[in-house]
Amino acid sequence: MSLDRSPPRALVFDIFGTVVDWRSSIIREGQALSLRLGLAADWPALADAWRAGYAPAMDKVRRGELPWLNIDSLHRMILDQLLFEFGIGGMEPAEIDHLNRVWHRLRPWPDAVEGLTRLKRRFVIATLSNGNMALLTHLSKFAGLPWDAIVSAELFKRYKPDPEVYLGAAKLLGATPERTMLVAAHPDDLTAAKACGLRTAFVSRPMEFGPTSRGHVVGRDDFDVIVNDFNAVAQRLAA
Amino acid sequence: MSLDRSPPRALVFDIFGTVVDWRSSIIREGQALSLRLGLAADWPALADAWRAGYAPAMDKVRRGELPWLNIDSLHRMILDQLLFEFGIGGMEPAEIDHLNRVWHRLRPWPDAVEGLTRLKRRFVIATLSNGNMALLTHLSKFAGLPWDAIVSAELFKRYKPDPEVYLGAAKLLGATPERTMLVAAHPDDLTAAKACGLRTAFVSRPMEFGPTSRGHVVGRDDFDVIVNDFNAVAQRLAA
Repeated sequence: MSLDRSPPRALVFDIFGTVVDWRSSIIREGQALSLRLGLAADWPALADAWRAGYAPAMDKVRRGELPWLNIDSLHRMILDQLLFEFGIGGMEPAEIDHLNRVWHRLRPWPDAVEGLTRLKRRFVIATLSNGNMALLTHLSKFAGLPWDAIVSAELFKRYKPDPEVYLGAAKLLGATPERTMLVAAHPDDLTAAKACGLRTAFVSRPMEFGPTSRGHVVGRDDFDVIVNDFNAVAQRLAA
Repeated sequence: MSLDRSPPRALVFDIFGTVVDWRSSIIREGQALSLRLGLAADWPALADAWRAGYAPAMDKVRRGELPWLNIDSLHRMILDQLLFEFGIGGMEPAEIDHLNRVWHRLRPWPDAVEGLTRLKRRFVIATLSNGNMALLTHLSKFAGLPWDAIVSAELFKRYKPDPEVYLGAAKLLGATPERTMLVAAHPDDLTAAKACGLRTAFVSRPMEFGPTSRGHVVGRDDFDVIVNDFNAVAQRLAA
């Protein structure tokens, strides 16, 4: 970040993969479910397929091929299909509902709560996720995330990377785009925010897609801040 | 509250007067401003007039006589008029902006933070105010209010007591109206919420309009919970 600019006022955070480790959380809960119900399933593969179904489903909403559906509903649509494909049968509807809400019970990366607590002292910190408000609220309560505000794409009835989401979030928080910084582990999200005039912090989360995956590679000038965890964001922003 | 109903999931709180003491906060900051700028002004009268101008201004928006304006803008419209009426001149625009944002710097009632912290352990707790998102976010940060989520009438482009605000808040938080409880110091707010199917908790704040005012009088069966502070709300809800 160039030093001649005034500091950001608001930091907004992507959630899935950036703040919380969706993959290991889903695998852990799925495997416990397998034990309890006596059903075999490849939970790592199911977690990956669930997550992989998310962007195409949102894109259908973004292109108008589906009406507005929130992420709980999109997750459920994908899950119903995956339970069939993975041959997982015999679950009660209430159990499927509960499994679908595993996205409300994801564990934070180890540095997340400490880094956010530090950043909160100096900045307004808020979520900026495609997850719906109820999901983000429940998840944040579950994970102990100390947000000043929950902001969701749902408030704008548009999904990231549509510009309305980034610009709408800055406006709701009373900050200009240039005094707002998106913190995310995904270059496409950051690139879209940058195009809207927001500042950007890339946090590398190489384990997001599991131990055998490779992290995103970014150029050293692609974003204002490029670091490995939230404490390093705080350090770079002198918080 | 009848004991045969399942407990609420989400508690939403009116803010001005219910959680924070707008009147003494404005008087204190106004008097400090008077000292600094060497201008005399009747700050208690100005605070009361500022607050009294708020409902009529919102009603103009509700009736469509004004376009959608958020509370920061309505507060500013009223303040400009009051500075003229009270003969307060010579303030720079930046000083007037800062004074207008005194609503972002209000002090909580003495029981508020402790009571909310207690209620947060058991329920989702959120704001439900006509104040705009930025105002509520800044105010909550200033006052150390531990919300799970900030919810504002601004998100629905309607003002309380319009039903869209109460119903919209419950929906965003993933709760049915009947599992949502409004906590407020104002019977009209609670009556409107009750008509939407929400549960209601009246908290008496007899000092809201100053030491010579009288508190609201409510009937013992008007609302589900009728108490004197937030710790008593927690006690009644077994939190």
